Amino acid sequence: MRMVDIIEKKRDGGVLTEAEIAFVISGYVKGTIPDYQVSAWLMAVYFQGMTDEEAAFLTKSMLHSGDVIDLSKIQGIKVDKHSTGGVGDKTTLILGPLVAACGAKLAKLSGRGLGHTGGTLDKLESIPGCRIDLSEAQFLRQVNEIGIAVAGQTAEIVPADKLLYALRDVTGSVPSIPLIASSIMSKKLASGADVICLDVKIGEGAFMKTIEDARRLSKLMVTIGASFGKKVVAFLTDMDQPLGLAVGNRLEVREAIETLSGHGPEDLETLCLEIGAAMIREAGLATADDEARSLVKEHLRNGKALAKFQEFIQAQGGKIDDLSRFVQAKEIVDFRSDVDGYVQRINALDIGLASMRLGGGRETKEDVIDPNVGIVLARKVGDSVRKGQILARIYADQPVTEEIFLSLQAAFVIVSDPVEKPAIIREIIR
Amino acid sequence: MRMVDIIEKKRDGGVLTEAEIAFVISGYVKGTIPDYQVSAWLMAVYFQGMTDEEAAFLTKSMLHSGDVIDLSKIQGIKVDKHSTGGVGDKTTLILGPLVAACGAKLAKLSGRGLGHTGGTLDKLESIPGCRIDLSEAQFLRQVNEIGIAVAGQTAEIVPADKLLYALRDVTGSVPSIPLIASSIMSKKLASGADVICLDVKIGEGAFMKTIEDARRLSKLMVTIGASFGKKVVAFLTDMDQPLGLAVGNRLEVREAIETLSGHGPEDLETLCLEIGAAMIREAGLATADDEARSLVKEHLRNGKALAKFQEFIQAQGGKIDDLSRFVQAKEIVDFRSDVDGYVQRINALDIGLASMRLGGGRETKEDVIDPNVGIVLARKVGDSVRKGQILARIYADQPVTEEIFLSLQAAFVIVSDPVEKPAIIREIIR
Repeated sequence: MRMVDIIEKKRDGGVLTEAEIAFVISGYVKGTIPDYQVSAWLMAVYFQGMTDEEAAFLTKSMLHSGDVIDLSKIQGIKVDKHSTGGVGDKTTLILGPLVAACGAKLAKLSGRGLGHTGGTLDKLESIPGCRIDLSEAQFLRQVNEIGIAVAGQTAEIVPADKLLYALRDVTGSVPSIPLIASSIMSKKLASGADVICLDVKIGEGAFMKTIEDARRLSKLMVTIGASFGKKVVAFLTDMDQPLGLAVGNRLEVREAIETLSGHGPEDLETLCLEIGAAMIREAGLATADDEARSLVKEHLRNGKALAKFQEFIQAQGGKIDDLSRFVQAKEIVDFRSDVDGYVQRINALDIGLASMRLGGGRETKEDVIDPNVGIVLARKVGDSVRKGQILARIYADQPVTEEIFLSLQAAFVIVSDPVEKPAIIREIIR
Repeated sequence: MRMVDIIEKKRDGGVLTEAEIAFVISGYVKGTIPDYQVSAWLMAVYFQGMTDEEAAFLTKSMLHSGDVIDLSKIQGIKVDKHSTGGVGDKTTLILGPLVAACGAKLAKLSGRGLGHTGGTLDKLESIPGCRIDLSEAQFLRQVNEIGIAVAGQTAEIVPADKLLYALRDVTGSVPSIPLIASSIMSKKLASGADVICLDVKIGEGAFMKTIEDARRLSKLMVTIGASFGKKVVAFLTDMDQPLGLAVGNRLEVREAIETLSGHGPEDLETLCLEIGAAMIREAGLATADDEARSLVKEHLRNGKALAKFQEFIQAQGGKIDDLSRFVQAKEIVDFRSDVDGYVQRINALDIGLASMRLGGGRETKEDVIDPNVGIVLARKVGDSVRKGQILARIYADQPVTEEIFLSLQAAFVIVSDPVEKPAIIREIIR
């Protein structure tokens, strides 16, 4: 087999065999196929696409390029959740305890945040004492005992994805649906869950700019999951504004606790209840959608989800003594509207960048995060605002720079005509 | 400027600026832009194409990546000729003396053959004593004195093309019209001629498989030439069979001399007369096409072109004492038809490979050529043949292997219905 023949076959619109795709991926990981051939192949895939079967073969080859986590020692149905990357996305902190309280098992290996999006590990580590470096035995025992554990990845999961993503990033082949689908699905499949819920964000700051693209990506991921015998449900959700109100590590933990206490922002609560219900339903803990929804809602209302959160944080060594004193930013600066009108849009990318610049996120992998800083929105899309009223609050440990104000100014689009509140979930594909 | 932005711009169908194209080429030659970004860019160019202006910018950037030959010391109009690669293509040996006899100047830097196509330098070196390693001064003096010189390339002409071609070859972006056009034109422009005639071969064994592709390539090369103030004429010619009858170095020199003596194969003579007339016309040595044609034909008929050939070979140290003893193959084996019928096709690639396997061409750059071996066709497309009659003669210095017979068998397609003789020139684009 020669790589140049495989490139030309794809370039000319041919359908690659399992053996050909495995040859590309294993050759690239071993170093026998050079970067310059793989980048040309990726560009050919960008233009010619892949059949569902090719994408499943690609996922399989990537999956087997590294370690595959064995969760068979966990009793019960293992559920997992993945978001394509959002600003203010603290759903794992809410959903995890919620579904664990209902009887599902969430054994989640998570990542850190980079750039304008935050990572679940960083949010957990903002809680005093909370550890994410669990040993494998500890991780499995905790899931069996209390139904939930979230840890940093230690095994080498899907090294092919790291290599391919780094190459795609500098050679213009990131926005390819089969390449994105196989990247996400290979990592999710390597993590060992039985039921996978995907939160596919749609918006200008997201990977998927249009609902059509998000739908194609979601359908492909559901199909790939099915070919591995896994149940995948994809939620197409709005990212034309941040999720909930809080952006920043402790601010988001606080909002997660508020949501688990029954007074979280509406969009965040709705999303957690819907994804939670789908997980419960697919895990076989409810036999109908309505029953699953009631069960999840009940566990949020009766305090069992909040209790599970506390149990989970405690099991990983964390402790929050007084929620009112948890976020300790040196100053809180109001950002106000200079016009009357209605909020039409809150650019999530700009809000994420503002939080990062305050110290709440990493620009490079080496940056140290300040857990206390961030942004809390006071208005969401559809809300009315009068000149001089607060649009957002800036939590800062340093004097707030002009650049941060400019980011916020750019983020908020205020118009004079009323704006409808957008639905958080635009479509569900299963 | 970032290479990834240029890749994405081309990927999305954008039109690159002169500065962007120059950034790619100079960065690649300097080594500041890696192979893997260039190969992705080339694949994007393959899919999105280039405007005529972009192709001209690319040609310019490539042209200036190395030495540009200065022919200003030669008096008169310098003409040049390039073929996209043919089997049995000995036109330079005929055309050069022909147009020099008419008063044009041919200062030609030529290449060696590789694979199934032969090179002019190899043909010249098959003549005892003939040298192709002329110094620059010697080369220019010879053109001024007798109107023609053909030498090997010593200056580093278009190093960007060598790099890009090697990369395209292993990454599936060879068959791209703007990339082929800029590759050919950058080398021709670097060679310094005023008038450039291009012989664009069409056929299964050629770069261009269809007349539509050949037309697009030719039009683009004419346009690129014009943007540099050069007159370019492209001949779209048939390569569904070898040109003339002889394939192999001395066999082709002999056929060139026969053609210059007025008894060459019809297709070869026609092609040389037509390209010669175009060169003479564009060089301003005739004011009308008919006049140019008459002038060229006259110089072929009156022996002046043949005398110029002898003068040219002599100037480069060569000598042919007795043409009847020039080709000295140990044995001549006949290849005969095993059916009655008409020749529909003679696959040039198969004939070229058979000649190469006899020792007449190089499989790798290091191979040494046997000047005496080759194939001489006894039938051309459109000829009738009876079972047992000769289709071709094999000139060999070693016992003829089964493989060579199989190549010839594969080359000839004999059908029962009469076949029309194809025209050698299918179209002229100027």
